Parts: sequence; structure tokens; C-alpha cells
Amino acid sequence: MDAELPSTEPAPTPVAKGEGPVRVSRPEPGIALIVLDAPARRNALSREMMSALGRALDEVSGDRDIAAVVLAASGPAFSAGHDLKELNAHRTDPDGGRAFYAETMEACARLMQAIVCTRQPVIAAVEGVATAAGCQLVATCDLAVAADTATFATPGVDIGLFCSTPMVALSRNVPRKRAMEMLLLGERLSAEEAERYGLVNRVVAPERVRDEALGMARAIAGKSRLTVAIGKEAFYRQIEMPLSEAYEYAAAVMVENMMAADAAEGICAFLEKRPPVWKGA
Amino acid sequence: MDAELPSTEPAPTPVAKGEGPVRVSRPEPGIALIVLDAPARRNALSREMMSALGRALDEVSGDRDIAAVVLAASGPAFSAGHDLKELNAHRTDPDGGRAFYAETMEACARLMQAIVCTRQPVIAAVEGVATAAGCQLVATCDLAVAADTATFATPGVDIGLFCSTPMVALSRNVPRKRAMEMLLLGERLSAEEAERYGLVNRVVAPERVRDEALGMARAIAGKSRLTVAIGKEAFYRQIEMPLSEAYEYAAAVMVENMMAADAAEGICAFLEKRPPVWKGA
Amino acid sequence: MDAELPSTEPAPTPVAKGEGPVRVSRPEPGIALIVLDAPARRNALSREMMSALGRALDEVSGDRDIAAVVLAASGPAFSAGHDLKELNAHRTDPDGGRAFYAETMEACARLMQAIVCTRQPVIAAVEGVATAAGCQLVATCDLAVAADTATFATPGVDIGLFCSTPMVALSRNVPRKRAMEMLLLGERLSAEEAERYGLVNRVVAPERVRDEALGMARAIAGKSRLTVAIGKEAFYRQIEMPLSEAYEYAAAVMVENMMAADAAEGICAFLEKRPPVWKGA
Repeated sequence: MDAELPSTEPAPTPVAKGEGPVRVSRPEPGIALIVLDAPARRNALSREMMSALGRALDEVSGDRDIAAVVLAASGPAFSAGHDLKELNAHRTDPDGGRAFYAETMEACARLMQAIVCTRQPVIAAVEGVATAAGCQLVATCDLAVAADTATFATPGVDIGLFCSTPMVALSRNVPRKRAMEMLLLGERLSAEEAERYGLVNRVVAPERVRDEALGMARAIAGKSRLTVAIGKEAFYRQIEMPLSEAYEYAAAVMVENMMAADAAEGICAFLEKRPPVWKGA
Repeated sequence: MDAELPSTEPAPTPVAKGEGPVRVSRPEPGIALIVLDAPARRNALSREMMSALGRALDEVSGDRDIAAVVLAASGPAFSAGHDLKELNAHRTDPDGGRAFYAETMEACARLMQAIVCTRQPVIAAVEGVATAAGCQLVATCDLAVAADTATFATPGVDIGLFCSTPMVALSRNVPRKRAMEMLLLGERLSAEEAERYGLVNRVVAPERVRDEALGMARAIAGKSRLTVAIGKEAFYRQIEMPLSEAYEYAAAVMVENMMAADAAEGICAFLEKRPPVWKGA
Repeated sequence: MDAELPSTEPAPTPVAKGEGPVRVSRPEPGIALIVLDAPARRNALSREMMSALGRALDEVSGDRDIAAVVLAASGPAFSAGHDLKELNAHRTDPDGGRAFYAETMEACARLMQAIVCTRQPVIAAVEGVATAAGCQLVATCDLAVAADTATFATPGVDIGLFCSTPMVALSRNVPRKRAMEMLLLGERLSAEEAERYGLVNRVVAPERVRDEALGMARAIAGKSRLTVAIGKEAFYRQIEMPLSEAYEYAAAVMVENMMAADAAEGICAFLEKRPPVWKGA
């Protein structure tokens, strides 16, 4: 992602595994755990945090050993969204901050689309508060698990900055009037409401969140990585097409999928009532 | 809106505040209350009613003192939809009514889109029965509160006139099979079902409906009007775009929003832990 | 449908009413009951089954005596999706099966779109397990009733063949994260969950499923067939349009609907408080 950032982008802080605002680990074979780790700043999506998360996703996406990704966070906030102090500090730029804000919003939009484009499914594990662009992160992940104490909000309207980019993800995941209510009133949704409206898949006790997300990742890791990658990409492509075009596209995807070794193996294994052995790739 | 109506449109009855089929008042500073007030005709969307409501929305939309709009109705019906007597009376027109029906359906489509384009959020306060284009009004509003005794239906199929324009709004607010069931069977939804399927946001006791809707309006009135207006417009524009285009658009909207005085004030106030003072506009 | 199949398509087995893998009957005037009747093969959508079902839908769609269609199945499975044995047998084709798979996926996509294009509403009556393209069948029907013991899954991911065409229908009926969970994990949804997520309309006791579906068909059969046909077609066309285009289209549809004899009759009957007598067509 960094290569695509404008030249005005400050050189990103190198993020080694286990240091910096994003930690990447492999708790189990085939599973990457990405942790937002700036709890004192409520995991705000500063430019540094967005760069680091983008790099982590890039690394993971290109790693054929990884089958699924869990995105979690340290501390009481999953993420509080954009770093308001950072944004505010650029008010005194000669252009009033315009260039910095444009770069920041583009970086955020690029980060969210990077999650959609990550080859592996990305599962949000939300233990705390997810607000504004932090709520957008959850909405953007392919799957999401939340603690029953987690809350979700798009409260930009309360500080004069409507959650316009968060609503791109939110309005594609929850019914229209629910999204509008969150965006216009800025109120917090409980985890139970978030589950009911479609923003998260499962709600569990706080101490169970990572395990539940890892369990979903483990289930996905047991499947053909090629098949999962084909399916994830096709999902987001077909959903934007008219019906007949979507069917034409999806039928072509299935034919290619049928020609892959993993489909041959999977179908044979099923018919022979034995477990499949995936070739991967 | 009237200026755009075809020249065959009869001259609209002037509607002063507090008289005619639509009453407009300001129950609180910053809040407009629009009441459909033809209870004996079940607030049918006659041409006169649609013109009056369109004018009321136009007035409100251009009034920078108004932050939010509540749309309510007098009597046991929120609105029974099109005025069937009026439609039927034009069967004997030389063209069998075709021109009148075309003007009426265009006026209805224009009215609904006027709600979407109204600068302020419009909150339906549904105390009674909302059917056909009356149900469409509810679906079209940005937010909706319903009495637990309210019901919702698109029963045009029972009189040989499928609720085709209502389904435009309905099918964008409730899941596909729920919309189909309402449209094909014409049966009534309870308020509880309407809430569950996403047609309304909240269900309260009948005597609490207007207060609840006014409470939402009051909450919105406490926010920056400029920010709310930016957000409402962006919501409906981005939801029709493919993802990447939506992000490009929303990111540009956020940059402009950041450059506005209200965002500067709102973010400063938040960082300084004081209430913001909006400049408005 | 058959006329459009590629010339490599084997000549379809003639399917008389009451024999072959699909049985068509008329349990009541105006209602067609189509039953998938290959219970030993779990009503797999073999090429023969798809051809037979496509023909049945074609026949029904062109029959002006039919007002509604119930789609049911014999045995414990509603449908298990594609016929894996049939697919697997073509691995040894000179082209590795590619041509056969392309024809099969195209036939499947065509079949699903034939349900959408069938003039009458099609109501799924799901008494058992609906998986993969069988789940897609349910998602594609206009309405669906399920036994409380029925289950739903898109488990292609477990055999290396992602349910890419099923997801076209699934992702247009249930919220995004729910669809993703079904597709990525392959787990079964209970009927209660299917109802909650919007995949089916009603859940009843197993012995009540067909009666409930027939009841919905009977309700539809009491309405103007022309009106229902106008509405069904318009639903699927407008839902793919941007809002302003959808309103322009739907308004035009309503004008044509108003000019039809059934709307004149229906509105008159309503105003005269008598039952309507539909002219049909």
C-alpha cells in the first residue's frame, strides 16, 4: 500500500513483528493475528496506524501459508476511529490542512478496500468500543465476533464531522434506517443490536471473543485456500452487478473453480467419504 | 415543486400554515412538525395533499433555522395512499384518465424524492395505519417511529393496482422476501414486524409516538446543521455507487466537511472537553 | 429454456406430468405444484433435473390459468444442489470436463433466472435440507415456507468448490455478513435463523409446510393475475435501478396498470364495497 501513497506521505515507521502500533503473530498454523496495539490512544487510526495495518494486510495477503486473519485490538477500545489530535494539528498548515486531510481520507478508503481485497477472510474480534472509522473497520471485515460488552457507534455528527466514509461500509451491512439512525444520532449500539442488524456475526462473553474468532479462522483454515480466495473475491465482485451479469460472472468463476485440483480432490474425497487433502495455492 | 408540475396541473389551493390538508408548525426551536390533516379522508395522497406536502417540504428545506422535520398525521390513518375516488373520477376523461394518472404518479414519485432531497432529516411519526403510498412515505423518511398499534401494508394488489411505486422505497428498506410478501399478499405488518424488518426504527406506546419522534428531532437539532445536511445527502448518493466509487466520493465529502468551520469547532470542543458552538449554515 | 441450450446439450428426457424427476400437478384451480421427485438422489440438480424443472416452469409461466406456483420436493432433502457424481464423471472428458461444467453452470444460472422470470410468483415449500444450489433455489423463489426442521447451507467450500452461483441469490436475500458466514464456513442454518435473516418468510411444523405454501398461493390466486404479473416483473427490474430511474420506471408501470381493466374493476369494487371480478389475462 505504501508505494501507492502520495510523495507527501511521511516515511512510514518500520513496523517489525511484535512492535509498533500493529502486532502480527501466528497463534496457530495458517492463521494470522493482527492486533492494533496503541491502547493509550484507543487504537486511533492515525496515519502511522493505517500505514502499519495496511502493511500487515499486504504481508498476510501475499503469504500462501495464511488461510485466515483475525483482527483484534489491545485495551478497552477496538478503535476510536481517526486520530483527532493528528487531524487538528494540521489546521495550521498553510492550506488549512486540506492536503493532509485528503491524504488521510484516501489512506483510510484505501485501507478499508485493502481488507476487501485481502486474499484471506478477515475476522474482526471486537472486545471493546468501535467508533467512527473503528466501526467501519468492523463493518468492512468479512466476519465479526463481538464481546457482549462491546459497543458500536458512528458519532462523527457530534463533532461536526459526519461519518461519511464509515457509512460506505455501514450502509452495505445494516438496513438503511438502522444505518441512518446510527449516523444521524451518533448513539451507541449494543453488541446484541449490532448482531441483530447484521454488523457482527456472533456475540460472546468478553473473555471468549478471540477464541471464537480464532475458531472461525481455524474452520476456514481447514478448507482449500484457493477455493476460499476464489469465493471471497467473487463475493464482492458479483454483489455490485445486475443479476444477469452476476450470474454470467459467477458461472464462469465456478467453471474455473471446477478445473482446479482442489475441486477435483474435494469432490472425489466427498464421494469416497474421506477427508480431502488440499494442494493449496 | 409546483413550478415543475406540468401545465395541466390545476392551480394548487394555497395552503397557509395551520389550514388546508397539511399543517406546518414549529413545536420547538429548530424543529418543523408537518401534519397530514385530512383525517376524514384517511390522509389520502390526493393531488391537493401531495402538492401541499411538497410545498411544506420545500419551505422547510430552504429554512436554515430548521434542523429536523417530524412528519405526522391526524386521525386513525397515517395515510391510506393514493386517493382512489379522485383517480376513479378521471376514468371518464377523454383519454380514459391516462394523462391524469401519469401526472399523479409523477407527482407521487417527485414527492418521495423530495423527502430524500430535503436538507434536514425527516422522521415519520406513525400513530395509525400506513398503507400503499402511505407506507411508502414511511419507508422514504430517513427515520421512523411507530405506535405499537400502527400497521403497515402495500395492499394495492387487492384492488388490481400493484403497489409499484411504493415498492421502490419498500424494497430498499426491508429484506427482499419480506417486501415481496407484503406486495404479493397485501397483508398487514404489525409495528413490531415493521421494526424487525427495518421499516421503522422504534416502536412505542401510541401516546408516546410524537414525543419520541420529537426527541429524535431534538437530538439532531443539537448537532451541526451543516454536518447533518452533508451527511444526509452523501448517504443517498454513495449507497447507489460501486464500492470504490463510493469511497472516492465519501473521502472527498469528508475533506470538504473537515474544511468547514463546524468541524474545526466540533473537533476542538471535543479535544477541549467542552460543548461545541455551531456556526450553522 | 431448452431451445436456448447449446447444441452439445443431450436431448432432454421427455417429462410427462407425474413421471420423471419433476412432477407437475394442480392441487387446486389456479395453482401449480411442482415437485422435485428424485428423493434417492436427494433431488440433486442434475442436468436432467434442471432441464425438467426449466420445462415445468416454462409450461406454467405460459399458462394463463395458473396464478401461483408452489415448488416442493420429495424425501428428506429439498435439494442437495449440483449432482456431484455427474460432474465428477466428466473429469475424464478430453477437455477435463470444462465444456460440460460450462454448460452445467450456464444451465443452472438460466434455471434460477427462469424462476425470476416466471410470470407467476413461485413459493418454495422446504420440508428438508436445502444445500448449495438447493439453497439457491430457495433464495431465488419469490417467497419461501420452511419446516422448523429444515436446514440451509452453502457448503461448497468444504469440497473445494465455492458456492459462487448460489451466493448470487443468497447475497441478495440475506445481510452481507450472514451470507459470508454461510459461504465461508459452510455451516447449517436452522429454519429459525433462515427466517430471521430473510431467507424464508415463514417457519411451520413439517406437516404444515405444503399447506402453508398452498395457502399463500391461494391468497395470490384470489388476486388479479395481470396485476400480480405486472408487479413481480417490476419488482426485479426496479430493484437494480438507481432511485430516480426506479421511480420513473415504476410510475410508468403504475400508469399502464391503471389503464388495465382489472385496476378499473378493482378500484370500483373497493369503492362500492363489493368483491372484484377479475378479467384476468
